[in-house]
Amino acid sequence: MTISSTSLNDVDIAAVAALASAVSADPAKAATRWKADVTWLGGFRTEAAVRDFEPLASDEPLGLGGTDTAPNPVEQVLAALGNCLAVGYAANATARGIPLDSLRIEVSGPLDLHSFLGLRPGHAGFSEISAVVHLESPAPAADVEALHQHVLTTSPVGHTLQSALPVAVSLAG
Amino acid sequence: MTISSTSLNDVDIAAVAALASAVSADPAKAATRWKADVTWLGGFRTEAAVRDFEPLASDEPLGLGGTDTAPNPVEQVLAALGNCLAVGYAANATARGIPLDSLRIEVSGPLDLHSFLGLRPGHAGFSEISAVVHLESPAPAADVEALHQHVLTTSPVGHTLQSALPVAVSLAG
Repeated sequence: MTISSTSLNDVDIAAVAALASAVSADPAKAATRWKADVTWLGGFRTEAAVRDFEPLASDEPLGLGGTDTAPNPVEQVLAALGNCLAVGYAANATARGIPLDSLRIEVSGPLDLHSFLGLRPGHAGFSEISAVVHLESPAPAADVEALHQHVLTTSPVGHTLQSALPVAVSLAG
Repeated sequence: MTISSTSLNDVDIAAVAALASAVSADPAKAATRWKADVTWLGGFRTEAAVRDFEPLASDEPLGLGGTDTAPNPVEQVLAALGNCLAVGYAANATARGIPLDSLRIEVSGPLDLHSFLGLRPGHAGFSEISAVVHLESPAPAADVEALHQHVLTTSPVGHTLQSALPVAVSLAG
């Protein structure tokens, strides 16, 4: 495969290739750890600090007892999935020499509030999540479909959501 | 149970109680649907629009081929979990008459990049997620522990991550 330009899709595919090479040479380099540090601000307002970035604000709608100053946590999950899928399309399109004219992803999911409200035991989260991908490219439809299938097999947030992940929440001593 | 004040923890617990009553009277009111609309901006930069809020920016670190202008999608998942847990503690502490002096939640998780980089098939997401909750309250430790256990059974993002969620990603026709 020849990559015609490292600026295709404005993606620094050389950096991705360099990381892949480095990981191939030393698999330990693939072991990453990610963090977020959340501070409660009162009510349902919180902010999540990630590295040195401006903290991300979170709140709940008025009907859920919040002050509606920011997206709520379940919306943030949908945003994270869409953002992750977009990175997957951009990275793999570039690696395959496929130019992207535009890319937009609508993510949505139903959530029954009974468990969150304590009215019924059981699953309090999304019952499913759907994403509809609007991808414009001059590439043949078969190439876009192959790209799409590849992205589904390599999405960190997609796989995180699709697996029954161990989540350990503990009170500090 | 008597709630001493609706302003405990600055939480509008009356709004939560009203929603719970409304859902009890009409279970269909519990059926909510949430959305995020992601737009690719070139490279690995994207933004996620949620309702009318300022879009949330996303990018990847330089080592992953991004331009490092914002938290990346897997960090956003951790942020969403911490934000959701914080809402759970604030809501249920208030419902139980427990004052919170402060609340901070450290969320982290390991992620092996082999699958994301296409070097190995398999799970591309977090293998686990941990959250350490720093909760300060004058309430008895047993009450805080009971609160903690209750939050774990009612967290929408926690349950979303812990379940093997159906995620359907389709290309628009």
